[in-house]
Amino acid sequence: MRNLAVDDPLTNLDACLDDDIQRAFTRAQAAQLPSAAADLALYQLLRYHLGYVDEHLRPTTADAGKRIRPRLCLLACQAAGGDIVNAVPVATAIELLHNFTLIHDDIQDASPLRRHRPTVWALWGVAQAVNAGDALFALAHIALNRLAQVPVSAATTVELSTALHLTTLRIVEGQTLDLGFEERTDVAVTEYLAMIGGKTAAICEYACWSGARVADASAQRVAAFGAFGHALGVGFQLRDDLLGVWGATSATGKAAADDIRRRKKSLPVLLLRERATTSDRARLTELYALPELADAAIADVFALLTRYEVRAAVQDEVQHWHDRAAALLADAVPDAPGREPLAALVSQLARRSG
Amino acid sequence: MRNLAVDDPLTNLDACLDDDIQRAFTRAQAAQLPSAAADLALYQLLRYHLGYVDEHLRPTTADAGKRIRPRLCLLACQAAGGDIVNAVPVATAIELLHNFTLIHDDIQDASPLRRHRPTVWALWGVAQAVNAGDALFALAHIALNRLAQVPVSAATTVELSTALHLTTLRIVEGQTLDLGFEERTDVAVTEYLAMIGGKTAAICEYACWSGARVADASAQRVAAFGAFGHALGVGFQLRDDLLGVWGATSATGKAAADDIRRRKKSLPVLLLRERATTSDRARLTELYALPELADAAIADVFALLTRYEVRAAVQDEVQHWHDRAAALLADAVPDAPGREPLAALVSQLARRSG
Repeated sequence: MRNLAVDDPLTNLDACLDDDIQRAFTRAQAAQLPSAAADLALYQLLRYHLGYVDEHLRPTTADAGKRIRPRLCLLACQAAGGDIVNAVPVATAIELLHNFTLIHDDIQDASPLRRHRPTVWALWGVAQAVNAGDALFALAHIALNRLAQVPVSAATTVELSTALHLTTLRIVEGQTLDLGFEERTDVAVTEYLAMIGGKTAAICEYACWSGARVADASAQRVAAFGAFGHALGVGFQLRDDLLGVWGATSATGKAAADDIRRRKKSLPVLLLRERATTSDRARLTELYALPELADAAIADVFALLTRYEVRAAVQDEVQHWHDRAAALLADAVPDAPGREPLAALVSQLARRSG
Repeated sequence: MRNLAVDDPLTNLDACLDDDIQRAFTRAQAAQLPSAAADLALYQLLRYHLGYVDEHLRPTTADAGKRIRPRLCLLACQAAGGDIVNAVPVATAIELLHNFTLIHDDIQDASPLRRHRPTVWALWGVAQAVNAGDALFALAHIALNRLAQVPVSAATTVELSTALHLTTLRIVEGQTLDLGFEERTDVAVTEYLAMIGGKTAAICEYACWSGARVADASAQRVAAFGAFGHALGVGFQLRDDLLGVWGATSATGKAAADDIRRRKKSLPVLLLRERATTSDRARLTELYALPELADAAIADVFALLTRYEVRAAVQDEVQHWHDRAAALLADAVPDAPGREPLAALVSQLARRSG
């Protein structure tokens, strides 16, 4: 693990993620009766979700996501002057924790697909998917507590652990708000930004904060890394919102205009509501009161989005948050070559198409 | 908190449990926009589940359960020669973690009632109940990490944290097996004991183990406390199984013969299956293939239970595990007066009627 390359610090992360799950599986097999152990498909569900096996539990290499959050943590550690290897336990924890929230989100949103494959609940039912998420939550922290085995003090490990639990509360608070928004027609853009500040940005903030903390940076600098991660996380979600309406199916893996069809209250429709005249707003409320939007209704929404130039406004907002992230990164890492890998990631995320 | 009475070490635990939730709520309110904070009913759902508010979120004092697990932890700490106050963070964590598993179990079993009140999912839906459980999981560990603020080293705190996460994996493994048993007709008693060893006994084992660990007892003695907790946990579940078939509604808060009606594969029916002739076993399989058992079918099952003297066999098994717990307690605490509070709890649990 010592040879993690600077340009791809995630080379071995995959192995770390799967090691943790396989270790738990082996331990469970040893502790249980053979006949009962055969039923311990729990860990295979996790390996399916993370892309290591297919739905028949045969080895595969499926799309496992972009791994942006652990990448942020490792690059932040390096940019703050730390040894990237020391941050691997917390980067592993971040990716496992993120995947726990995805498994539970898919249940809550009744999403049939994730990364082009059926979701865990769609294949094995809600009850077992709740278990799978709970197990990943525990596995994330077993990985994190391994920090105390690298040159990170036990006191710092406890601090990083509590901070990740507080981050989890912010994620769950955001998800609670998001579910509540579904019942409302009057969600303001400011409320929406507060919601994604928890649901999406909190874990990006933690990723950058924890990387700098493991590197033993000053309190002020660690906070600056956190602020950078937060801004980047908000920008990341807003770019997702843009792609959910105007993205190409081939790149996003979602149906065209998927967020409109599913009546998601993401930034485009919230901005539209704020800009629209009273009668157009009433029309929008009417359309969004339907259980699902048909093609004609989707065309109506697009006509409104065009009339009020919403696409450009969303693009401006995406650019604003990435610019802000870049400025905060320059605060955290005044040395330009030192911040290059993170700055490159910011540019890449601001322009991504999937 | 220094004055926790020896005969009721839980005097202040209620305040600790609620403090943790209220603190998170206050922090979330401060961090969110006022309008969004009004939606943060998440923490009120937790306070409902723990018995502090009713379903209209008005203060109440509902049945909050027996608090046996945190009690075990505190008494184990004391019996191992430790200061009971040092164990309060971990006792709080244990009760919060146990309640996270209950909220998710109620979703998985579609249980409408818990402690005589509607369950969280029944009142607020599955999606918000998943959130409530996830938040309690995080809150449990925020409480546990506070151990590092009492005279317990950060290294020991990390050890206790990892052990609680491994315990959680055993609980989830047990729950996975239990859900799998519902689909089968051939569950053996040995498999069942392995399942409850995870689902019910693992947290009791952790409670006793962690209490002794906080007291800084020797590794051998800490292990002995764990073995005691495990045996007591199995005995506790088997007593529950007995009450689920033959308990009085007034004491259990469940319908009479509730476990038969719901076709639960608990010890009585598994013992019956092992003892029955081929034709009686076929009759039992036939009855348990029905979606729900009507009164006549329940009477048929009771006739079989009587024919094979299953009640006495279950009682023997309950007694066996409590005797085993008492013997393991004597190993852990050779000094008789020192083990008196825990021994009294063992006797009380062996005879409980609700």
